[in-house]
Amino acid sequence: MKIEHIGIATYKIDDALKFWRDALGLGVVETEEVAEQGVRVAMLPVGEPRIELLEPTSESSPVAKFLEKRGAGIHHIAVRVDDIRAALGRLKEQGARLIDESPRVGAGGSLVAFVHPASAGGVLLELVEHTPAGHNSEKRDV
Amino acid sequence: MKIEHIGIATYKIDDALKFWRDALGLGVVETEEVAEQGVRVAMLPVGEPRIELLEPTSESSPVAKFLEKRGAGIHHIAVRVDDIRAALGRLKEQGARLIDESPRVGAGGSLVAFVHPASAGGVLLELVEHTPAGHNSEKRDV
Repeated sequence: MKIEHIGIATYKIDDALKFWRDALGLGVVETEEVAEQGVRVAMLPVGEPRIELLEPTSESSPVAKFLEKRGAGIHHIAVRVDDIRAALGRLKEQGARLIDESPRVGAGGSLVAFVHPASAGGVLLELVEHTPAGHNSEKRDV
Repeated sequence: MKIEHIGIATYKIDDALKFWRDALGLGVVETEEVAEQGVRVAMLPVGEPRIELLEPTSESSPVAKFLEKRGAGIHHIAVRVDDIRAALGRLKEQGARLIDESPRVGAGGSLVAFVHPASAGGVLLELVEHTPAGHNSEKRDV
């Protein structure tokens, strides 16, 4: 298991980049819109994991609701697993409350599923399984 | 620059371990009390970065105040830098608001300094420089 990324809710990615890119010195490798989640995303590698800046593209986006309730800040942690269905099965056996009982398609074509913060000590935890058609073969420069 | 750890505020580390260790399957490599910060800490590696569970040991601990205000959940992100003084200098030049203008001693004898969330898009960001006398030479099993 590896940390895949840390998601950070922002009002405007361009404003957030003034800190993460300009002041801290990280590079941006990918930007993408994930229509299903109502967000625009920018990925910034920090060693192996990445910082994922999230900006809502609609008012009904879960990220828009998070910003309304808590303001900008850390939104979730994503861990990379080899077999997301097996990981979900184990978590369910252990009694964890799952937001997604089965995986769905996330950024870059990966398979993703969220664990409810109620089961993860207040942390919104995302499981990510990279797929052959997903992340690894579709890196884009911006 | 690398992500060193993600700090998660908990009411009781032992309760939080039921998820992170027992349900998710991570191992615990170190536990420590950092008296200056008023916390007990458990470190769980996830690939290269680590999940750091934090439990307050006094009511005046910053983590106790965080729990009171926001409840359990993600508290901070720590990035590892080679030269913490140089990194603080760059951030200051860029106008970032620093909680620690100069480094102080953190968990495992490392040098640490915090950047204020107001400058980091709502994220409490910790810079960590490992020192010869610190982390790397003092791993303990629990």
